[in-house]
Amino acid sequence: MENIKIVTSAMHVPDKVVTNDDLAEIMETSDEWIYPRTGIHQRHVVTDENTSDLATAVAKKLLDQAGWSANDLDFIIVGTMSPDALSPHTAAIVQGNIEAQNAFAFDLNAACSGFVYGMSVASSFLSAGRYKKGMFIGAEVLSKLVDWKDRTVSVLFGDGAGGVLLEKTDAQVGLIAEELQSFGDRGDAIITGRFANKNAFTGEISELDPYFHQDGRSVYGFATREVPKVLDKALKKAGLEADDVDFYLAHQANKRIVESMAKNFGQPMDKFPTNMEFYGNTSAGSTAILLAELQASGQIKPGMKIAFVGFGGGLAIGVQIWQV
Amino acid sequence: MENIKIVTSAMHVPDKVVTNDDLAEIMETSDEWIYPRTGIHQRHVVTDENTSDLATAVAKKLLDQAGWSANDLDFIIVGTMSPDALSPHTAAIVQGNIEAQNAFAFDLNAACSGFVYGMSVASSFLSAGRYKKGMFIGAEVLSKLVDWKDRTVSVLFGDGAGGVLLEKTDAQVGLIAEELQSFGDRGDAIITGRFANKNAFTGEISELDPYFHQDGRSVYGFATREVPKVLDKALKKAGLEADDVDFYLAHQANKRIVESMAKNFGQPMDKFPTNMEFYGNTSAGSTAILLAELQASGQIKPGMKIAFVGFGGGLAIGVQIWQV
Ligand SMILES: CC(C)(COP(=O)(O)OP(=O)(O)OC[C@H]1O[C@@H](n2cnc3c(N)ncnc32)[C@H](O)[C@@H]1OP(=O)(O)O)[C@@H](O)C(=O)NCCC(=O)NCCS
Ligand SMILES: CC(C)(COP(=O)(O)OP(=O)(O)OC[C@H]1O[C@@H](n2cnc3c(N)ncnc32)[C@H](O)[C@@H]1OP(=O)(O)O)[C@@H](O)C(=O)NCCC(=O)NCCS
Repeated sequence: MENIKIVTSAMHVPDKVVTNDDLAEIMETSDEWIYPRTGIHQRHVVTDENTSDLATAVAKKLLDQAGWSANDLDFIIVGTMSPDALSPHTAAIVQGNIEAQNAFAFDLNAACSGFVYGMSVASSFLSAGRYKKGMFIGAEVLSKLVDWKDRTVSVLFGDGAGGVLLEKTDAQVGLIAEELQSFGDRGDAIITGRFANKNAFTGEISELDPYFHQDGRSVYGFATREVPKVLDKALKKAGLEADDVDFYLAHQANKRIVESMAKNFGQPMDKFPTNMEFYGNTSAGSTAILLAELQASGQIKPGMKIAFVGFGGGLAIGVQIWQV
Repeated sequence: MENIKIVTSAMHVPDKVVTNDDLAEIMETSDEWIYPRTGIHQRHVVTDENTSDLATAVAKKLLDQAGWSANDLDFIIVGTMSPDALSPHTAAIVQGNIEAQNAFAFDLNAACSGFVYGMSVASSFLSAGRYKKGMFIGAEVLSKLVDWKDRTVSVLFGDGAGGVLLEKTDAQVGLIAEELQSFGDRGDAIITGRFANKNAFTGEISELDPYFHQDGRSVYGFATREVPKVLDKALKKAGLEADDVDFYLAHQANKRIVESMAKNFGQPMDKFPTNMEFYGNTSAGSTAILLAELQASGQIKPGMKIAFVGFGGGLAIGVQIWQV
């Protein structure tokens, strides 16, 4: 085990709620279609914020909860596939906003696996002995990357952010094992956020297309077939049986995908908590939002074993197993 | 020292060369204006490639040079501020292209400090003992993010990619020290790549603007004032004097910035090699392209101490000192 403490977790979503019924007013859809297929009843969308605003709100809560000063931080990593801009990177804006004078900052993009990949990088910095205290935040404003005329994707996503503080420790808590995998040959199954590739000398090579395009069926099949294999490898690396893990915090894309995982490992659904009902799919934000809610409600207790399970764009999968 | 070997380095730029004279044909500028102020004579721009194509070419060269199989790789990190898309991430496309079945993959964005920040993450994975072999590539197609009608930025940038293979080792080579810093409060000095922030419920919050906007003077001042301070800290951490370092490979934004650094540390310019003459500013690609050229020409010899110096968008600065 690599001895690292998840000191605290926090979340933030914008105030505005958009229900499935609200969607039904602007497109040919319904709660009856969306909810049974996805487990989603509503999502939050921004009214004036961008990704760095959501992440900054989380950063402030984290420091406040832990009683840390911003100057305690050695690094700030933001996992996002919907940054404010390609430059400045969102983590730098957060670093500036909270005045974390000793922290370096960068963005990481592994799409919906952003939480697990970000936790992998953050924990490596601590385990390498180079740094002592760090912040990871997954933050997304996906509402700006969906075509609200396209019902096949717009009903799935939401805006939100969640994060953690991590600290090197001598206590018997930390990362037990991880298994991360990339399936780049299937990357076309989830596409979003393309600036036009064009220049004054060769003209337009490819067009501007900010919007999500998804082969929902194949992503569904990918998630239900491949994620259990990766989770199984992570459990083996950790020397654990599925029963030994107290909570599986899976990326909140679709409730049926989570149910299929629980069934696959013979686990009750209360070990696979969900909250996509309220937030939709918030990509790199989802797992941290779920963690923050479960820690705030006291359901996650010291000594428990938690598996974080990410999957999505890339395509990519990542599993980490922690003792908290 | 963290014992890690830079196994090999490689670079790739698109074929098409655009000289300052070519630029003078489409905008009010000249080699007489550009060269003395920047040290840039020409840059390469894509004709049909995107960022993942440049990165894939580098990845193939790297494996070929080292005699590694793609399956040897534990991870692939691409540093970029000009990815093909926000999803799939560019590193996943590279992983798919080279069929690196055991490698996970993600993108990292620290703008022009992308090489140093990426090397920091990659070396942490190895030093933490979690992984043994990895690939880092800095890759950019900045020609798609400049407004070719804006002479204040379009003359500065170029397209290109460079990268390294890294391996855990017992030999006395590796990372001696690093110092990374973020200046997020000055992030507005370099802006690029903004999708419109808008949704069906709250309308347009901010506009689409893919293009670079730069306060050239303030970035120049930032680089010449702040980078030496960070380099000084890195040297102190490493227990080295400026004279002890054999080569300083600085981000290739502007020759005058590099000259100012050399002067600041009382070092001759041949210890601060430059190649922006040929490639312009290739952001996360620049330092690796320079390293690859110097290794290919045999100028960098085993046992030498090399400082990598990154600075730019964020704003961010990063320095690493390696024994190679
Ligand atoms: C997206 C998803 C819910 C779609 O469910 P599905 O059963 O595969 O539905 P299909 O895409 O085959 O569409 C079935 C029909 O419903 C229609 N439909 C699609 N979206 C709709 C919506 N929001 N409301 C009403 N009808 C809709 C389709 O147009 C299609 O109509 P047709 O048969 O007349 O052509 C499902 O594929 C899924 O959850 N995939 C995983 C996606 C995911 O989680 N991605 C993120 C991973 S990080
Ligand atoms: C960009 C840079 C070369 C500009 O040099 P400068 O001396 O600061 O020039 P200014 O921006 O003040 O412009 C001076 C004049 O030249 C003009 N000019 C700008 N770009 C020009 C060009 N490509 N060709 C001709 N004239 C140009 C300006 O319009 C201005 O004209 P004006 O005085 O009539 O208004 C310089 O500021 C620089 O190198 N900054 C650092 C940028 C950098 O490296 N960024 C990347 C960091 S990763």
